[in-house]
Amino acid sequence: MALVNEQFLKLSESYLFSEITKKVNAFKVIHPEAKVIRLGIGDVTLPLPEAVIDALHKAVDEMSVSETFKGYGPEQGYRFLIDTIIKHDYETRGISLDPDEVFINDGAKSDTGNIGDILSKDNRIAVTDPVYPVYIDSNVMGCRAGEKNEDGRWSNIVYIPCNAENHFIPELPEIRPDVIYLCYPNNPTGTALSKKELKKWVNYAISNNILILFDAAYEAFIQEEDVPHSIYEIKGAKQVAIEFRSFSKTAGFTGLRCGYTVVPKELKAFNFAGDKISLNRLWNRRQSTKFNGTAYIVQRAAEAIYTPEGKVQTKVRINYYMRNAKLLHDNLKSIGLEVFGGVNAPYIWVKAPKGITSWKFFDRLLFERHIIGTPGVGFGPSGEGYLRLTAFGKYEDTFEAIERLKNWKI
Amino acid sequence: MALVNEQFLKLSESYLFSEITKKVNAFKVIHPEAKVIRLGIGDVTLPLPEAVIDALHKAVDEMSVSETFKGYGPEQGYRFLIDTIIKHDYETRGISLDPDEVFINDGAKSDTGNIGDILSKDNRIAVTDPVYPVYIDSNVMGCRAGEKNEDGRWSNIVYIPCNAENHFIPELPEIRPDVIYLCYPNNPTGTALSKKELKKWVNYAISNNILILFDAAYEAFIQEEDVPHSIYEIKGAKQVAIEFRSFSKTAGFTGLRCGYTVVPKELKAFNFAGDKISLNRLWNRRQSTKFNGTAYIVQRAAEAIYTPEGKVQTKVRINYYMRNAKLLHDNLKSIGLEVFGGVNAPYIWVKAPKGITSWKFFDRLLFERHIIGTPGVGFGPSGEGYLRLTAFGKYEDTFEAIERLKNWKI
Repeated sequence: MALVNEQFLKLSESYLFSEITKKVNAFKVIHPEAKVIRLGIGDVTLPLPEAVIDALHKAVDEMSVSETFKGYGPEQGYRFLIDTIIKHDYETRGISLDPDEVFINDGAKSDTGNIGDILSKDNRIAVTDPVYPVYIDSNVMGCRAGEKNEDGRWSNIVYIPCNAENHFIPELPEIRPDVIYLCYPNNPTGTALSKKELKKWVNYAISNNILILFDAAYEAFIQEEDVPHSIYEIKGAKQVAIEFRSFSKTAGFTGLRCGYTVVPKELKAFNFAGDKISLNRLWNRRQSTKFNGTAYIVQRAAEAIYTPEGKVQTKVRINYYMRNAKLLHDNLKSIGLEVFGGVNAPYIWVKAPKGITSWKFFDRLLFERHIIGTPGVGFGPSGEGYLRLTAFGKYEDTFEAIERLKNWKI
Repeated sequence: MALVNEQFLKLSESYLFSEITKKVNAFKVIHPEAKVIRLGIGDVTLPLPEAVIDALHKAVDEMSVSETFKGYGPEQGYRFLIDTIIKHDYETRGISLDPDEVFINDGAKSDTGNIGDILSKDNRIAVTDPVYPVYIDSNVMGCRAGEKNEDGRWSNIVYIPCNAENHFIPELPEIRPDVIYLCYPNNPTGTALSKKELKKWVNYAISNNILILFDAAYEAFIQEEDVPHSIYEIKGAKQVAIEFRSFSKTAGFTGLRCGYTVVPKELKAFNFAGDKISLNRLWNRRQSTKFNGTAYIVQRAAEAIYTPEGKVQTKVRINYYMRNAKLLHDNLKSIGLEVFGGVNAPYIWVKAPKGITSWKFFDRLLFERHIIGTPGVGFGPSGEGYLRLTAFGKYEDTFEAIERLKNWKI
């Protein structure tokens, strides 16, 4: 009799965005004439950079003739892209990596979800709260979450609150975890960690043999000097951290699907006997077995981001979104709201006024100003009382949203 | 202390193809002048169909302007592709499917590897032997294989031998499994199952609540009337089977990465309490959490396979490879070898002469005729004494291989 993985039965349906859709649809029935501005979803709106388009056309042409056609590529990705990544994203910051420490993938979601394959189900997981839901849900599936409590927290997961009270700087937890997810610049709060703060975590991990899963998907949005782009800027981090990167937001690849994961060879975890085991070797085995590489044409597209033209065109896009972020940040502040993020990340984390809930704030913004955000509570218990706005909209829409917010009596 | 999934430590490095490479390199040192013909690897050599190339260019252009740019798509795939698949691959055979029963992916390897996520580790797995190694290795990782015995078999896996003695028709196993992998047309043996034979398995699965994981990656190569293209051609199969399909071999997508998985809504597995659970819902949750969809441009490319031009161009490629298959099959037979497969699949399964081992046969073919095959034992214990040749080479190379084999004293 075929048995299911019962852990799945503990998960609710992905509730957040369907609930939003339901509410927006109800609103539209009552106000069919209203022009709703969507600042809720973290998807880009600008088209792909010209250099990427050119590289795609060229690679497609290669696939059309026998002499240059590419079949199966290496599961780990092509050397032309890996070498380019190491040179531009790491060597420029004084970090050296071997080519077999970089694994090209079809986006960070796959790897942050699948990384649990190589880890024991006996690990205690920690997350900052609020949090990107994939970290939690994939660990529920992987039998590491325990049971869901009344307050929405899972019994075996360590939650590290990040809120206005602690300036969104996570404190070392009282219960020591085995694995911790850190996403900086952070989704959903848009806040960042300074080098000093990240160093605290790396040292904690080194002292306690903790594995850090460092999600740097929003690295390209960093504006401030003191914010590390890679966790490997911190001494010793290669012993304790896996880093996830993505081209999704950097270069508009959300519909093209490419990113990469760095698993340093000096990074070790343990078997039950206490022997050190190379996670690089395990991840390589996982990818060779369950993945067949990212499309050749997409890898050529990613390579084009690093050309001089590609860099300029990418920067233009980042600047465009960060102009939106600043506009939102400054104007929300000027009407008296408490606002966080938006300086090193394309997310604005707004405190709901007068102690109202996330959903209540969502409703008011929708009904009174026809703007859609994302209720912070959807990202975890510590997100209650906040709302996430994203800077990925069109400038004109963001500008109009700001106009609507002026003189809003909050 | 971060702990690894210890199951990974039971797996050897992917040994087969690296051992082949080592032997070929050694051969080349001794015979630097020899022109080696590779008939070992199952990768296509013909470029992408023109219709696919055109669709890719068009979709790339869409990605270059705001109005038609596509960001995140549905994790399950775009409706334009799902609807096209249902219409052409299923409705033409009298099979009706709902759009939410089809999940677009980045190739069959990912899904045949990841499907274990939704299944309990307490399931007993059965495979036909020889077998595509991903089925075994992914179940080792998923803690369902037990320990590796001296004979190369895993203690908790049920092996169903397929060999010349039983005409490569798997017999119902003595020990009843919970989940069984069937790959037909088969990799590596190149043999197929008739409707009557497949019906035997579907009925067995229905009677015993067994889940069939049906890998139909080579469906497009079927030539004979009586061989089912989809397991759902068998009555009742929707209650017991997941079907994996791939565009890799059908249309040369090995480097482009696209396939799909069908999980019917009436398919149920069980929780420990014996309640029926929908696997469709679980797989949807898995994909929504750990996958972010296949590139839009690649899905447009896949759609183009189903246009009138695409169908003709794809058929031309299939015929090209199947001409190779027939050439290999008939000529190997004519020199006195026992040959299987090659009629409904691009693989030829050759019995080594005089009872020599797979590796001995591999060596002789390499050293005496400068042709590379794949030792059958690499696919499992019942593959010992066989060699796999593939029809995916260039016609000229296949023809030359045949010339070399004439008058070979086996």
